[in-house]
Amino acid sequence: MPETTDPVDLTAALVRCQTVTPAEGGALHMLGEMLAAAGFRVHRADRNGTPNLVARWGNEGPVLGFNGHTDVVPTGDPSAWRHDPFGGQISQGRLWGRGSADMKSGVAAFVAAAIDFVAATPPNGSILITITGDEEGTGTDGTPAILEWMRDNGDRMDHCLVGEPTCPTRMGEMMKIGRRGSMTATLVAYGKQGHTAYPDRAQNPLPGLVRLLDRLASKTLDRGTDHFGPSTLAITTIDVGNPASNVIPAEARARVNIRFNDAHTGQSLSDWIEEEADIVAKEAGIGIAAGFEISGESFVTEPGPFVELVAKAVEAETGVRPELSTSGGTSDARFIKDHCPVVEFGLVGATMHQTDEHVEVEHIVQLKGIYSRIIRDYFAG
Amino acid sequence: MPETTDPVDLTAALVRCQTVTPAEGGALHMLGEMLAAAGFRVHRADRNGTPNLVARWGNEGPVLGFNGHTDVVPTGDPSAWRHDPFGGQISQGRLWGRGSADMKSGVAAFVAAAIDFVAATPPNGSILITITGDEEGTGTDGTPAILEWMRDNGDRMDHCLVGEPTCPTRMGEMMKIGRRGSMTATLVAYGKQGHTAYPDRAQNPLPGLVRLLDRLASKTLDRGTDHFGPSTLAITTIDVGNPASNVIPAEARARVNIRFNDAHTGQSLSDWIEEEADIVAKEAGIGIAAGFEISGESFVTEPGPFVELVAKAVEAETGVRPELSTSGGTSDARFIKDHCPVVEFGLVGATMHQTDEHVEVEHIVQLKGIYSRIIRDYFAG
Repeated sequence: MPETTDPVDLTAALVRCQTVTPAEGGALHMLGEMLAAAGFRVHRADRNGTPNLVARWGNEGPVLGFNGHTDVVPTGDPSAWRHDPFGGQISQGRLWGRGSADMKSGVAAFVAAAIDFVAATPPNGSILITITGDEEGTGTDGTPAILEWMRDNGDRMDHCLVGEPTCPTRMGEMMKIGRRGSMTATLVAYGKQGHTAYPDRAQNPLPGLVRLLDRLASKTLDRGTDHFGPSTLAITTIDVGNPASNVIPAEARARVNIRFNDAHTGQSLSDWIEEEADIVAKEAGIGIAAGFEISGESFVTEPGPFVELVAKAVEAETGVRPELSTSGGTSDARFIKDHCPVVEFGLVGATMHQTDEHVEVEHIVQLKGIYSRIIRDYFAG
Repeated sequence: MPETTDPVDLTAALVRCQTVTPAEGGALHMLGEMLAAAGFRVHRADRNGTPNLVARWGNEGPVLGFNGHTDVVPTGDPSAWRHDPFGGQISQGRLWGRGSADMKSGVAAFVAAAIDFVAATPPNGSILITITGDEEGTGTDGTPAILEWMRDNGDRMDHCLVGEPTCPTRMGEMMKIGRRGSMTATLVAYGKQGHTAYPDRAQNPLPGLVRLLDRLASKTLDRGTDHFGPSTLAITTIDVGNPASNVIPAEARARVNIRFNDAHTGQSLSDWIEEEADIVAKEAGIGIAAGFEISGESFVTEPGPFVELVAKAVEAETGVRPELSTSGGTSDARFIKDHCPVVEFGLVGATMHQTDEHVEVEHIVQLKGIYSRIIRDYFAG
């Protein structure tokens, strides 16, 4: 039995790497050296300056994948933190710092679990670890670049587990088996500028725009589906920038963001907004142009043997049966779902992206235990 | 018979004064000297740096007042003008320059008419000329300061004619016997910031704000009254300034401007908006604060002898019977109406505030003729 790899020390070491997205900060270098020393074949799949790591142990199938990221969001004012955000300090049973929850602890836990597992019990199959340095930014050259690199190099995964923090407040209470889609529509309403004293000589784009936004925001998109809660639409901004109270503006812009379940697609929602915009533009006698950015379609990994294997491992180590959820924001699982079935499980994310981000030290140890059990059960099955 | 004062030369001389609001630019000084030489008692009623002129001929009643302003709006890019905006050039039968229409020609015409009249036929009564250097700006220290100065010095007018350009396209076609009121409401909607993926943890102020604005903009305020067209409401701006498409904002601001007739008051409209805001805020579970700025109540000088005297003078000199209108923007008549009956008549204002502002030279001569006839008929009556 080899000396076990301490996931808490590894998390602290990773927190000390300055990896505000998309800086590498030494994190992938350190992980690559550890994995290489443990017998993994380690590659860098960097693209356009974004650092990406691919590490594989074994040549045969089945291939169990783990995915994560080492980049973090900015700290805000560091002096507002109780502990140095890049200190990786342990205090009151907690490990403090930017990325401690999202998601250096998750990376540390699956790297430690994988290294120890292959040393003790060479599996009948392969473990493939992919870690990117850009999940918090645009992500364009992160996990998508890794998946392309894998395709070009004949690598694939049969199943993948993403180590993002998934538990709202209590360890073990939630795993993610899918994610809602996200789509942003930019609406530009055009009219004709003029003086408020002579509205008949102008064409105000704003009454039409507020009518359209009211119609969009008032619509019940759906009441939820088998694995998803109801889709939601948020008006995020409206901007005119007209300082003169006696001037009717020529143009106004607005944006709405929709988080949608599998009752919709980015296309069906774009079509709906286009139709509504056309109706209102005609009524109001103005022009409305709509542009769409679909940052991810909804997806779900249907409950089955792999989902059950992960859920059972969580329950065995924590005593808590995890809810199978599709709530929350997007993650790199939205890219991986086109490659293989993917689920997500990780720590309590309550403090992620906040000042004083931290995790319970005990949970990091528990998480390594869960990932170890998943590896064991996966190759036993 | 004295040499007559040329209103075209005087308009050109005034256009050459650099009087972008509230600069005096030598204009009131020049007019004061001319009026003093003609026997007027000339006073400056400046306040807080705003230049104001009060000139009176005679001691007895009745007192006929003329009011105008010499300040002008900025020129924009002077190189976009066909002629120097401060050149006062005459070309193709037109006098070109900033303020040529609004309203240095009006000031020149009534000053020339008054000077010539008192020289030829000392009237049984008084002529009181008031000219301000701030009508285009806030106006706070312009005509209101003149009216206060008059009150403090025991001066008053029985009737007043404001020389603003009142004809849309054809000389003589319109005089103003009142003005709509103007009120601006600033609406601030408050909610709670959050992530678009977790809308239940946030409170988006925007759906409520667009609902409120749609309700306000959809309302038929009235269908017009005896002397007024329908009141109008314009949403002039909505501003959030949220660059992040995944963030629900905490606050949003909007402004609406209402031009209202005598079916409303600033207070009745403020009350209506407050009520609507309360209803929507309650429905939407957000806060909405409303602030109001009433820049003028509506008013009308009911048709009667004075209105008829002015209309007849216009018709006699132009062959056109002027429409008695209350349309258009606000003017300093909104202050004078609290002092005495007030009407407005002046040139064609089609190019006012625009590049290449100009008037027909012939119209300036005609306008002096109209004002001269008004003075004659007023003191004959």
